[in-house]
Amino acid sequence: MNINDLSRSTIVLDHGTGAKLSRELVEMIVSVLDDTYIGEMEDSALLDVDGRRLAMTTDSFVVDPPLFGNGDIGKIAVCGTVNDLAVMGATPKFLSLALILETGLPLSTLVRVLESIRDTARESNVKIVAGDTKVVGKGEADRIFINTTGIGFFGRAPLRMKQVRPGDRVILSGWIGNHTIHLLSIREGLGFETRVLSDCAPLNRMLAVLFDAMPESALRSVRDVTRGGLSAVMHEYASALDSTIEIREADLPIQAETAMAADMLGVDPINMANEGCLCLFVAPEHVEQVLTVLRGHPYGRQAVEIGEVRDAGDRAVVMRTRNGELRTIEELAGAELPRLC
Amino acid sequence: MNINDLSRSTIVLDHGTGAKLSRELVEMIVSVLDDTYIGEMEDSALLDVDGRRLAMTTDSFVVDPPLFGNGDIGKIAVCGTVNDLAVMGATPKFLSLALILETGLPLSTLVRVLESIRDTARESNVKIVAGDTKVVGKGEADRIFINTTGIGFFGRAPLRMKQVRPGDRVILSGWIGNHTIHLLSIREGLGFETRVLSDCAPLNRMLAVLFDAMPESALRSVRDVTRGGLSAVMHEYASALDSTIEIREADLPIQAETAMAADMLGVDPINMANEGCLCLFVAPEHVEQVLTVLRGHPYGRQAVEIGEVRDAGDRAVVMRTRNGELRTIEELAGAELPRLC
Repeated sequence: MNINDLSRSTIVLDHGTGAKLSRELVEMIVSVLDDTYIGEMEDSALLDVDGRRLAMTTDSFVVDPPLFGNGDIGKIAVCGTVNDLAVMGATPKFLSLALILETGLPLSTLVRVLESIRDTARESNVKIVAGDTKVVGKGEADRIFINTTGIGFFGRAPLRMKQVRPGDRVILSGWIGNHTIHLLSIREGLGFETRVLSDCAPLNRMLAVLFDAMPESALRSVRDVTRGGLSAVMHEYASALDSTIEIREADLPIQAETAMAADMLGVDPINMANEGCLCLFVAPEHVEQVLTVLRGHPYGRQAVEIGEVRDAGDRAVVMRTRNGELRTIEELAGAELPRLC
Repeated sequence: MNINDLSRSTIVLDHGTGAKLSRELVEMIVSVLDDTYIGEMEDSALLDVDGRRLAMTTDSFVVDPPLFGNGDIGKIAVCGTVNDLAVMGATPKFLSLALILETGLPLSTLVRVLESIRDTARESNVKIVAGDTKVVGKGEADRIFINTTGIGFFGRAPLRMKQVRPGDRVILSGWIGNHTIHLLSIREGLGFETRVLSDCAPLNRMLAVLFDAMPESALRSVRDVTRGGLSAVMHEYASALDSTIEIREADLPIQAETAMAADMLGVDPINMANEGCLCLFVAPEHVEQVLTVLRGHPYGRQAVEIGEVRDAGDRAVVMRTRNGELRTIEELAGAELPRLC
């Protein structure tokens, strides 16, 4: 991002879609915050409270539409923050909840969102400990925005990107693209929304089962695949590890109707946001056991190995296509679709 | 709020102004969240981490305009959360920072806001540990919204509303109304903004000096006087303590130009939002020492005793007017002015 000529620069939608421009915006923000920013480029920060480790993460949600077929912005707001804590190896405990409401929002919408927050908090066993509500005028916000900030405790060593090694396998816990197709179908009236549902789910309990079942060394690092999709996660790791990551097109878990819709729309599922899909980096000898544990859980039925981390040195994301060719996957400037989370 | 007839009800601006309708909305939210909400009606929640107490608080900021004469939404976002932690007796340590940016926002505006966040974080000695950035389309948000969520540690016993007793004195640490008049003057082009500045300031260091100087029992409870103004704080305590609180009109600290502007606008400074003013409930025998300590600090020069808590039983807020009459101060349905914090 050109911070040397700010006068000519403005925020564009691609700054928020989780791809290259988003990364550059975040780098600019971090550089301006200077020594006051001590976060890490993981899904949660690690805090030290008198030698006791805590994880902390924050997320604002601007989902359009706020109410959709099998969920709403309230469910996403709890799941997103719970999952960001859980993928670090933390047990989510406390959430704050801050609402920005547009004048004219039906109270019935607010109540449905709050009921989802309550139900999802129960399922993921977190408590809401602090709240805030702001109201803005008509046209000053789009219906409802939610911020959830979460704190988690550690019962195991934190999972870190840098623990990933060449030879580690890449596993996805579920279908990719469904959340995006579901919301897009509702937005554009494409008629897929009843056959393709959002994958939005709190994944901390499934991960807790996995943590219990596996030796700590088996799981190197975990991410939830949200904004920017699988492609953004792969590029994030390739760059952090300075390695090539190879994924196999034929093994990508994509529901048939989702592939069809993506085709029709000319978008690629690997760039699509999800709200309930994990990407796990696993030591080769433990892949089968991890898959078995994941598939035994309702949120992990579609778990599959999709690729592996190659030797370090050459930073790239490549895909072995169905016809056996090796294609380089470029990092997009911006993902195709805004406001899915 | 009529939650039994949601179909007819929508959010209105007064739901966000910190007076009666705001309180009723919060009560509705808490009732829907049911057992998943364990927060308290204080400025911060108290968390137990293995017997170690933490304070946590969240706030979203929708200040209009985001850049004003002697500050901006970034400074307010750090001050608001730092102050909410400090008034509980906690030492603010960690903040998360979540931005919602409207397409078309000049990057120069974003950078100025970030520089204020950095500078105010340095002054208040907090670190930013986690962040999030979302971008929405033109007209889907008003320029920039910020959420800060903070964590603080305790070096002393937490301050709680319920520690306030009949006979305790009410002290204000600074002028009231200035923040509101400053922003309103810029919004409406009234020409007061150069003579009346926002009081926006991080108050944790002044409070730390006070905590060091006083025995713990001297300070019963502290609030920062923000949305809804002094009136909202007085009503909050009167209702929590089931007591009458009496304040003295002649002792209210109001800058001359602010009183003039308020008069012109037909608004009362006791209903105006502030961003750097504390309301302290103090044991009578310690009032003089508290005033001396506060007045010795740049942010406390105008500190003054304005009233006291009467015997319990009759829940009311009353004001002794300049001509000696006792006037009941009713809780407003909504404060006059939205989007000041």
